[in-house]
Amino acid sequence: MSIVNDPYAEEYGFAFLPGGGVSSARGFKASGIHAGFRKNASKPDLALVVADEPCAAAAAFTRNVFCAAPVQFSKAQLTASSGSASYGCMRAVAINSGNANAATGDSGLEVCAAEAGVVAQAVGCPTSEVLVASTGVIGVQLPLKPFEEGLPQAVSALSHDGGADAALAIMTTDTRPKECAVSFDGAPFGYQGSTFTVGGMAKGSGMIMPNVATMIAVLTTDAPVKEADLYAALRGAVDASFNKVTVDSDTSTNDTCMLLASGAAAPGAEPFEPGTQAYIVFERALSQVCVALARAMAADGEGATKLVDVTVSGAATPGDADAAARTVANSPLVKTAIAGHDANWGRIAAALGRSGASFAQERVDIDIMGMPVCRDGLALAFDEDEALRRFEASEIAIDVDLHAGDHSTTVWTCDMTHDYISINADYRT
Amino acid sequence: MSIVNDPYAEEYGFAFLPGGGVSSARGFKASGIHAGFRKNASKPDLALVVADEPCAAAAAFTRNVFCAAPVQFSKAQLTASSGSASYGCMRAVAINSGNANAATGDSGLEVCAAEAGVVAQAVGCPTSEVLVASTGVIGVQLPLKPFEEGLPQAVSALSHDGGADAALAIMTTDTRPKECAVSFDGAPFGYQGSTFTVGGMAKGSGMIMPNVATMIAVLTTDAPVKEADLYAALRGAVDASFNKVTVDSDTSTNDTCMLLASGAAAPGAEPFEPGTQAYIVFERALSQVCVALARAMAADGEGATKLVDVTVSGAATPGDADAAARTVANSPLVKTAIAGHDANWGRIAAALGRSGASFAQERVDIDIMGMPVCRDGLALAFDEDEALRRFEASEIAIDVDLHAGDHSTTVWTCDMTHDYISINADYRT
Repeated sequence: MSIVNDPYAEEYGFAFLPGGGVSSARGFKASGIHAGFRKNASKPDLALVVADEPCAAAAAFTRNVFCAAPVQFSKAQLTASSGSASYGCMRAVAINSGNANAATGDSGLEVCAAEAGVVAQAVGCPTSEVLVASTGVIGVQLPLKPFEEGLPQAVSALSHDGGADAALAIMTTDTRPKECAVSFDGAPFGYQGSTFTVGGMAKGSGMIMPNVATMIAVLTTDAPVKEADLYAALRGAVDASFNKVTVDSDTSTNDTCMLLASGAAAPGAEPFEPGTQAYIVFERALSQVCVALARAMAADGEGATKLVDVTVSGAATPGDADAAARTVANSPLVKTAIAGHDANWGRIAAALGRSGASFAQERVDIDIMGMPVCRDGLALAFDEDEALRRFEASEIAIDVDLHAGDHSTTVWTCDMTHDYISINADYRT
Repeated sequence: MSIVNDPYAEEYGFAFLPGGGVSSARGFKASGIHAGFRKNASKPDLALVVADEPCAAAAAFTRNVFCAAPVQFSKAQLTASSGSASYGCMRAVAINSGNANAATGDSGLEVCAAEAGVVAQAVGCPTSEVLVASTGVIGVQLPLKPFEEGLPQAVSALSHDGGADAALAIMTTDTRPKECAVSFDGAPFGYQGSTFTVGGMAKGSGMIMPNVATMIAVLTTDAPVKEADLYAALRGAVDASFNKVTVDSDTSTNDTCMLLASGAAAPGAEPFEPGTQAYIVFERALSQVCVALARAMAADGEGATKLVDVTVSGAATPGDADAAARTVANSPLVKTAIAGHDANWGRIAAALGRSGASFAQERVDIDIMGMPVCRDGLALAFDEDEALRRFEASEIAIDVDLHAGDHSTTVWTCDMTHDYISINADYRT
């Protein structure tokens, strides 16, 4: 898991935990097993994350009109718990891969309710404390039987080391599992003797458009945070991470990011209050985990060979920075040029020009991999051999300065290769 | 050239002229030659369209902030002629392929002015009556020398049959030239003895995002239409045709559509006045030509094997219909599914859901190639073998009914194949 540079990481002692993931935080167990949603018995397809006790939970969901049954059901569960669809008190999260339970109507919702009942019975908690998520093909009814047959095994397999298995079980077209965790010492903020951990797992291909039920992330922490405050931290972290992967990653039918907080690292302690140093450091740790997972999603884009960082600075507004960076990051012409090791900044300029951002073309500067290729909107001679050498890297930086203001952002994407076509032309068959 | 069904075509006697193109209308000559913008001497790269006399001209240009020098120059020429950047009195249009003269700064504008001077001298008209357009790689200075060396030959080659050569000379990654013309009898509208013709040529790959300097179209007519009225007709035709190919086809750096009207089919006659039957029929003929060229662009999308018609009906507003159809038409997941002969309506639903259009998912109907695959937002069993048979067609219809209102539109696109990646990963090298 690549570690993102964060000026606060060193100051506050953030450190990525070797092998860290969704069960690294105290008070959580996880497992991943093959339950039968997929035909291939060697592919795990059911992940379970369970808290030792009912705990604060927050979630951010897709805004797609075609939102899947598990999204609707989990929102309803949270609403029943707290009055808000964004947070509540929960104990368990079950995620299956292989079937998204999307565009399945009332039957799909009935399956969710039955699934939650099966989870609750296996875990030994009320049905009202179960969240569910699904990823896979849409428009096909989700069978209940694999839950009924698999959940006893999934519960037996639950362990503090089970995060890695869970991360494998939620993969679809992902080529590698995505998980990480960071820790920080509570002593500087008045929590002597406590080390707090934030960990998580994610799946998603981070491709230019939403895949069938693209993105699911489950995060846990043993920090003490109240439900609504937990959601505020999650919302900020998601906007700065998963929502920066691509323009539509937040709007596929099943996109879901859940965060559970057990408080188990400081039993009986006061919750982190917004505005306090402890809460701010927690927010940063959470953001670091989310950014690392988001970048891993982009790097594992379908058919991708490279992670691409598109940074736009000098924008007139935050919205302009975002629109400009996303339009470049979503351009198939830019992404295919990178796959072809072609420093074709003209395609970047064309994308900027139609992004809707305000700027003057005669002021735009563009660098590719640190090489100035465009200054004041004009071509700059550059060493093509050196460019080809730099294109060998696994991470490609595109830096744009619009010289129209003070706002900047970074969006993560990947190159676009023949394998993207192969994966997506053959996915369902 | 495929003929689009048009309820007025039969009524008013529209007919596609065999071999018709940009020089079919009376009063125009055209040519296409190799001038040296490209290394391959067998590839023509300079097209010239010249009116016998100065005539009414109208143009629609890209809205991209990075707009190319020939766009800026041609707008300035029109403005100098009429006070409006959209129309004026012109005599000649020169178009080169191989170099877009975009992102070339003041030097690029100076080349345009010099080019217009060379054209004017060769044609024998004032420099103020010359429009220019360029297509090809952006960010590279356009050489003047090929104009100086090529224009005498281009002028010598001008003929009433030269439209086909001109259509070849403006191609870049196009695999086939795109030209057509229609005629209609003026007698029913008081223009006894006159047959009016509208013809044109276009280049453009019609791919999901703007190619380097994607779309250029030059249209001519021998109908008598005043400058401002000509622009009004052109604007409507462009919005209903080229701007329906894909969301960004109207905003690449060089997109240009020009229309010249000689009036030569009815010398001395009164111009067609807006609101009259003659003008309305002219508008329809112009639209038919533009739609045929636009569909040809979509069908010739980079790497495309199929033309795809995405029709959305039952939208609450015209904007919703457009957004929904464009989002589906631009989705790489939809386009790769079609390349893979996969009736994956879930990807269509996901695109609709994030399009911003207002609708209820439980009311949506989707047909693919006339086969109902989704009703009331739910999967419908369909004959997969029959679907595979229908996918053999060269034109694929996707029909969506949102059941949210009375507005509808059609957007044209193409499938997305391995060849798209090959073309765009290797374009510049």
